[in-house]
Amino acid sequence: MADITALRARRDRALGSGASIFYREPLHIVRGDGAYLYDADGRRYVDMYNNVPCVGHANPRVVEAMARAQSTLNTHSRYLHEGIVEFAERLTAMHGEQIESVVFSCSGTEAIEVALRMARFATGARGIICTNATYHGNSDLVSRLSRTDRAGQVADDIRAIPFPEMYRPLQEGLSEVELTDAYLAKLREAIEDLRASGMGVATFIVCSILANEGLPDIPAGFMPRAAEMVRAAGGLVIADEVQAGYCRTGKWWGYEVTGFTPDIVVTGKPMGNGVPVSATAASKALVDGFRVRTRHFNTFAQSPLQAAVGMAVLDEIEDRGLRQNAASVGAWLTAAMRERIGRWPSLGDVRGRGLFVGAEMVKDTVSRAPDAVRAADICERIKDKGFLTAAAGAFNNSVKIRPPLVFSQADAEGFLVAFDQAMDEAHAASADG
Amino acid sequence: MADITALRARRDRALGSGASIFYREPLHIVRGDGAYLYDADGRRYVDMYNNVPCVGHANPRVVEAMARAQSTLNTHSRYLHEGIVEFAERLTAMHGEQIESVVFSCSGTEAIEVALRMARFATGARGIICTNATYHGNSDLVSRLSRTDRAGQVADDIRAIPFPEMYRPLQEGLSEVELTDAYLAKLREAIEDLRASGMGVATFIVCSILANEGLPDIPAGFMPRAAEMVRAAGGLVIADEVQAGYCRTGKWWGYEVTGFTPDIVVTGKPMGNGVPVSATAASKALVDGFRVRTRHFNTFAQSPLQAAVGMAVLDEIEDRGLRQNAASVGAWLTAAMRERIGRWPSLGDVRGRGLFVGAEMVKDTVSRAPDAVRAADICERIKDKGFLTAAAGAFNNSVKIRPPLVFSQADAEGFLVAFDQAMDEAHAASADG
Repeated sequence: MADITALRARRDRALGSGASIFYREPLHIVRGDGAYLYDADGRRYVDMYNNVPCVGHANPRVVEAMARAQSTLNTHSRYLHEGIVEFAERLTAMHGEQIESVVFSCSGTEAIEVALRMARFATGARGIICTNATYHGNSDLVSRLSRTDRAGQVADDIRAIPFPEMYRPLQEGLSEVELTDAYLAKLREAIEDLRASGMGVATFIVCSILANEGLPDIPAGFMPRAAEMVRAAGGLVIADEVQAGYCRTGKWWGYEVTGFTPDIVVTGKPMGNGVPVSATAASKALVDGFRVRTRHFNTFAQSPLQAAVGMAVLDEIEDRGLRQNAASVGAWLTAAMRERIGRWPSLGDVRGRGLFVGAEMVKDTVSRAPDAVRAADICERIKDKGFLTAAAGAFNNSVKIRPPLVFSQADAEGFLVAFDQAMDEAHAASADG
Repeated sequence: MADITALRARRDRALGSGASIFYREPLHIVRGDGAYLYDADGRRYVDMYNNVPCVGHANPRVVEAMARAQSTLNTHSRYLHEGIVEFAERLTAMHGEQIESVVFSCSGTEAIEVALRMARFATGARGIICTNATYHGNSDLVSRLSRTDRAGQVADDIRAIPFPEMYRPLQEGLSEVELTDAYLAKLREAIEDLRASGMGVATFIVCSILANEGLPDIPAGFMPRAAEMVRAAGGLVIADEVQAGYCRTGKWWGYEVTGFTPDIVVTGKPMGNGVPVSATAASKALVDGFRVRTRHFNTFAQSPLQAAVGMAVLDEIEDRGLRQNAASVGAWLTAAMRERIGRWPSLGDVRGRGLFVGAEMVKDTVSRAPDAVRAADICERIKDKGFLTAAAGAFNNSVKIRPPLVFSQADAEGFLVAFDQAMDEAHAASADG
């Protein structure tokens, strides 16, 4: 404990006091293995949060690929290299035929920057449409898509539309078909507003499963109709698959789940199992246009290291059937969690997409008022029982469950016991208080 | 050869036709070792271009640190971790006392984004001053600092001043003192223009040795006086040490060579010897302010992997005396190259900062008109003799020499033979043609 206090003080100095950290008592994690993390006292935690180590913490095949690449060759991309071409070919082959070429980057933010600029160059328009509770990254341009950073911007080139959802619909009393139309009307308003401003519509950028919005159930038909509406307005559709892709949903890509066809696909987090790799994939014409216009170069990207590690991750997912694991364990866990709706007044809703589940905490199930304090408290209690989650979603009131893809049925069952206990204790504590 | 043609065709498809590549006949490099690169036919090249593998290609200590970190723990930064704190402490201790805390990123572009936004938040101003032949990165904001991408921007928040230099001075016939004043007057104009526009001065961002400008000899006193002028105007000084830092110049930091004190220091390329690591270092107040304002988080940055690899690189530089090597081999090579001025009409100037040397090609030494075609031709001829360089500089007319820090005196001597032959041949060819 003294060690943690001292380390935390050093951290505040060396990294700045505002450096983001999880939990009231931060964890001092020293080792990872598969779906497990271990703290300095040797305590084991089941990791139910981290999607980056998708094929497991300390995955031996990834370590081996990484060490082999770095001890053979790791240089920038202005020489010919077989591996990076092969990696790009494998990635593009996993999408529809409209996706032909790749621009590699290091971080999701960088890949989103490439996608947004690609869309602007290709369309000649500047306007960007996003949802009103999204997060796509941390650069000057991309952070403006986030609600907090958008506030106060005037004469902006960004329009944020209400994210489509069933739990707190835009308007009460509508059928699902009418609700879809109501959300689409908001998209049309944004398009018309951008046209009226003279900026035009460059792109609609959206996380394919609305992960940061809290994985809402989306009114039927919204996503494909939105994509077509944007394209009819001359814009391109960017699918942010940084969280949604790489089998997270039980399918390879989130857009398969929500049923639309993107023009540009951005991937990131799990691609390198911890090695910085991200990608912007699109038609060859879009990529060529971007490259000619910018002469884009990224020192660390499109490297032999990214290729070797990236392909080891794809191999692991394929050889170990991790997509199927995400589908089956995820479906089981979501169903089990949904059965619990009604057991406690604070469990408002449970929504899942494969191995990505959100349990939404509310003040009560009638008002559905978000309860972020409750969500944080539940995450703390679950952590004390050896399972790591974090609060997230549009109102920060969802317990976010997004484990490595190697997460097992047995750990899902163990988690449910901890979750039930945490909820019982929390409600008993509320009743006491 | 057939293989290279086929691989290049696949590359054009998978990565887009405009993906940047070196040399008329691209190199198919398959292996690296120290300062050497090997192509698919087993031919050895002395790498005189790559600064990223600063402690040598395939450095065993880096490989070992990387494999150990990845097989132990590599997760995001919201848990406590000793290594990343220690790495940040080591980095800040290498600067003056004004540098206290670090924000880690993956790429140089990301670290520059952090620096620019940090300066804007701290000053409340928006105006950015840069030089007119710089390159700081590839995002929407940062690419606007590049000349090509700035063109045509109206009502911009960026002002580009002529970079200070002795070879093609802003005005002929001035003493060095007067020339310094002339360049400073341009800076003052930019400051006053930004103030008049209401945007104010957030920052002057500059590569500490003006690397992309072509490593010019800078009129005495310009850099420290410029820094003070910017601070007096309420702005912060960002030193871009992505190329200049990490012993490249024979000193740890480029600003030590050109004699100024930055408020914010950005480092990148060599930090991870190929693993994506970059950093923005500043006072704790600046870093805290940035973190509070943005709640900045970068998934892959500030990671155990970055820390382990980053410290292995520092250890190698220190234990193997690579700063001293850069200083001594660099000084010898620069002197030997400078002695050659006058031997060929196209060798206009040679300038060096440690193990970073530029040989500027001109149409003739009277007009000093840049000759980019000559520079490219010389690089091709040198390559055919087994030494890798590339053309760079404000006019793309300098042969850029920037080898790994492990580059030896023997290889420097070998290079000189190749350089002399290449120049002789090129001039003989010109005479023929």
